[in-house]
Amino acid sequence: MTDYTMTARTDLSFAEATSRVREVLGEQGFGVLTEIDLRATFKAKLDADTADHVILGACRPQLAHQAVQADPSIAALLPCNVVVRDAGDHRVVEAFDPAVMISMMDDAPQALRDVAADARVRLEAAVAGL
Amino acid sequence: MTDYTMTARTDLSFAEATSRVREVLGEQGFGVLTEIDLRATFKAKLDADTADHVILGACRPQLAHQAVQADPSIAALLPCNVVVRDAGDHRVVEAFDPAVMISMMDDAPQALRDVAADARVRLEAAVAGL
Repeated sequence: MTDYTMTARTDLSFAEATSRVREVLGEQGFGVLTEIDLRATFKAKLDADTADHVILGACRPQLAHQAVQADPSIAALLPCNVVVRDAGDHRVVEAFDPAVMISMMDDAPQALRDVAADARVRLEAAVAGL
Repeated sequence: MTDYTMTARTDLSFAEATSRVREVLGEQGFGVLTEIDLRATFKAKLDADTADHVILGACRPQLAHQAVQADPSIAALLPCNVVVRDAGDHRVVEAFDPAVMISMMDDAPQALRDVAADARVRLEAAVAGL
């Protein structure tokens, strides 16, 4: 859908889709370190009513460790966000594409390219596994 | 330091720097929604010893709401990460540059450009306020 995410759509309910995303991430070795409920945040802070929308911060510690060893600044782009949102008659799942991280850097070290490639294959498999 | 972050260095201790970052973010209207202690995560999951390193997920709800209205996929790039890390004789603070988000998109709507510009000014002021 965008040039910076890997996307899937599903007919599962929002709750089921979110639970399934955690499952497929786990199968690919990612833990979910953070969860931001955007709808609840917008309601609490702005009294705005919006669609179900959650940001999961996924992290595979081995990959994050290798990435940070190669370039500690890369932490500003971690964890890998995977978003689930309601789109009316279906739900959309979007993972930030690690290849885009690399494209943002003028001169990414090879070790970082390797980590991003590994993360990309895993996230792509997770999204496809929905 | 990088082409995708706004950076400051400080002689404050790691704990003081992290607390100060939360303060300056608050002054610019950002709440901290998530905190990932990378050092603790690497120790717990990999038994690896690394330097102090924390990722704060900063969010100004008004801006996030405008951004998501303009393009719901942008949630894959939220919240705005601000990282504090120990670099031996000093600490480094790095905020992901919202202008880079926009540069990743082929055709960002004007509303999104406006939000990113606003977020950038605020994060720049926060980092400068250290």
